[in-house]
Amino acid sequence: MSTAQAAIEKKRDRGTLTSQEIAAFLRGYMSSEIADYQVAAWLMAVYLNGMTRGETLALTREMRDSGAVLDLSSIPGKKIDKHSTGGVGDKTSMMVVPIAAACGLTVPMITGRALGHTGGTLDKLESIPGFNVRPSRQAVMKILKATGAVVMGQTNDLAPVDRRIYALRDVTGTVESIPLITASILSKKLAEGIDGLVMDVKTGSGAFMPTLRLAKALSRSIVEVCNAIETKIVVVITDMGQPLGRAIGNALEIAECIEFLNGSTPEDLETVTISLAAHMILLGGQARSIDHASKLAYEAVSSGEAANRFRQIIRSQGGDTRVMDDPDVLPHAEHVQDLRATNGGFVTRCDAKLLGLACNALGAGRNRVDDLVDPGVGIYLEKKVNDRVVKGDVLCRIHWNDEKRLANALPLIKEAFAIRSRPVRRRPLIHAILQG
Amino acid sequence: MSTAQAAIEKKRDRGTLTSQEIAAFLRGYMSSEIADYQVAAWLMAVYLNGMTRGETLALTREMRDSGAVLDLSSIPGKKIDKHSTGGVGDKTSMMVVPIAAACGLTVPMITGRALGHTGGTLDKLESIPGFNVRPSRQAVMKILKATGAVVMGQTNDLAPVDRRIYALRDVTGTVESIPLITASILSKKLAEGIDGLVMDVKTGSGAFMPTLRLAKALSRSIVEVCNAIETKIVVVITDMGQPLGRAIGNALEIAECIEFLNGSTPEDLETVTISLAAHMILLGGQARSIDHASKLAYEAVSSGEAANRFRQIIRSQGGDTRVMDDPDVLPHAEHVQDLRATNGGFVTRCDAKLLGLACNALGAGRNRVDDLVDPGVGIYLEKKVNDRVVKGDVLCRIHWNDEKRLANALPLIKEAFAIRSRPVRRRPLIHAILQG
Repeated sequence: MSTAQAAIEKKRDRGTLTSQEIAAFLRGYMSSEIADYQVAAWLMAVYLNGMTRGETLALTREMRDSGAVLDLSSIPGKKIDKHSTGGVGDKTSMMVVPIAAACGLTVPMITGRALGHTGGTLDKLESIPGFNVRPSRQAVMKILKATGAVVMGQTNDLAPVDRRIYALRDVTGTVESIPLITASILSKKLAEGIDGLVMDVKTGSGAFMPTLRLAKALSRSIVEVCNAIETKIVVVITDMGQPLGRAIGNALEIAECIEFLNGSTPEDLETVTISLAAHMILLGGQARSIDHASKLAYEAVSSGEAANRFRQIIRSQGGDTRVMDDPDVLPHAEHVQDLRATNGGFVTRCDAKLLGLACNALGAGRNRVDDLVDPGVGIYLEKKVNDRVVKGDVLCRIHWNDEKRLANALPLIKEAFAIRSRPVRRRPLIHAILQG
Repeated sequence: MSTAQAAIEKKRDRGTLTSQEIAAFLRGYMSSEIADYQVAAWLMAVYLNGMTRGETLALTREMRDSGAVLDLSSIPGKKIDKHSTGGVGDKTSMMVVPIAAACGLTVPMITGRALGHTGGTLDKLESIPGFNVRPSRQAVMKILKATGAVVMGQTNDLAPVDRRIYALRDVTGTVESIPLITASILSKKLAEGIDGLVMDVKTGSGAFMPTLRLAKALSRSIVEVCNAIETKIVVVITDMGQPLGRAIGNALEIAECIEFLNGSTPEDLETVTISLAAHMILLGGQARSIDHASKLAYEAVSSGEAANRFRQIIRSQGGDTRVMDDPDVLPHAEHVQDLRATNGGFVTRCDAKLLGLACNALGAGRNRVDDLVDPGVGIYLEKKVNDRVVKGDVLCRIHWNDEKRLANALPLIKEAFAIRSRPVRRRPLIHAILQG
């Protein structure tokens, strides 16, 4: 029997694959001896029958080693990254990266584009005129040494088998699998040559892991693989029942990040951002305790040092630094339409998933990998859960360019909001923290 | 979400697909909107989560209707076919077809090639010099009218989606699935435009359904789909613990069939052949009872009418009819080597699967669709289960052409036989009969 069929049938029959079998399977795929359809059948068997922790570890290692691993040893200090499983209005990367860099860490962040209802950090950064998310390998080293951080897209030589497998999973109903998600995230992150990782695992309607149970299971899987692979890890499980902050959409979110770094921010955004940044600072050995690390993170913002770092990052990646002082430099939609409350009471729903889908419908996201995003469109939330409203209050402002797209988005946005006479029980912003 | 992903995810999540969803999925595949890898993921989900009878029925119907359905209405009388799930030494088609035709039925048999450890009727027939298994559509009608039977390969226009799906299943570990097997067999058979079908479902080491439980489950699935589709059906579950008859290999089996039609045969071969032929005769309305049908089948052989029909079939499909009188017209291997008993007692094992694999190793079968078969090689069993032997008796004669292939086959053949001091409990030749 072929390597491919042996691996497929073993997983189909609930067997446990050895590291050698996993390695042979992935290498066969990369060398084209094993076909897409065989990997697809195997992925469905993994989805339905799961993987042991040992299999997940072997898969992660083999995916990491399918390409180059960055060698950052010439850069002094700890290399710490942060990764999020993705959410609506989730723009924390653009704040935690400059904060962490301002606190002495090196952050070699490789990140992705929008897909489905969640936004992508690369798309957001590209709304800054000139910002280049594909610096050369030499430029990356230069930027890292100069600014302490770089934010870029996955290159062809990092974890190439993950890119091929992810594309397959996306069209074969095999995305939501804990071992496959674990290996996909960690193979890329570990290829960055980092010393430690802070993971933001989102839970709630707008997250890939809608329930806390699933979010915890993924978090445990990530922590255990990192432990085995001797990489420091902290997982913060944060809420994605409603969008994070007030802005959803590429340029709108960049503007909100810059406001934050310049000193003004919605409370939920601050809580999550400071928590993630503090864990990075602590992992990187720049603080004595998590409280100390939080203090350092706050100080980096209040002193203007984080904003300064973001300016340097933008400049070093070719972006127009005037955005730091003038949000009008960012692209903006031609029209803004308000959605108003039709009755008074308390906002009891401001659903992340529906608002994410609505932003997609407006053109901020993509349904296929090759769709172009519209950087200007999006939604700005004036009211969030448990805010008191009277009839006629603006719930949100819709930034739009295309009438047909607006017509598709509006019903989703209306459905996302509910107003009742009493407030609801508040969901915690941070559900749990797991450490490796 | 796309049609493909909706269907994959529904089956993945143990949902029940509607006829419309199944139709859209298969049509999308045929029109190339849906990719091989999506079908592969779906097949694995079907393999692991199963299908309801309604889904299996819809799949069968849609696969049948993916191509042409033969219109045999211009040919008078009942069109009845026989199909086997495949076994080692299973050469009954070459006997039941002429018997049934001699008894007044029309048999438009579409059959397959060897794959894995089981032989293929087409390969066996092609060992008759000149025999053409691809007559034109017009020739088929002419042959059917003249001889009452035709035996041919699947054409491109009959159930084309089955051919594509079968090829995928073969390399994605999704062959042994009862709904998929049911739909694959019946879609092709129903595309023949038949009134009734006799199925030979094999069980035992040499069968695709090794256990009686699985054989019965497949049989029930076939009966229920045929009932729903209003096609008469009889399923005979027959034994494949040891090979059927004495010959295994293409030309060797043809020679054994001709011996049978000429009046001499091993008992097991006779029992199964007459049973299958009798059920066809009864389904086709040519007999009052199964006993009457058996009598007619025996008479067709003893009168020489079945042999005469086989001669006509061979002639009408371009084959050399001298094989009916002179087995030397058939290709034969250059060498024959005997395997002898190393101790005395009773043969307690004569394993169908190992002997099938050994024949494959000798070159009688194929591992890939495009392998060429060697028509002359094979194994002739001199002893079968519960035959008494003394040390030095010939257990079987190995017909071989290639020394390296012989060396690969020998250990399998030795392992296939066991001799003990006491006989074993006899497995029944016919395990069960199910009727629609």
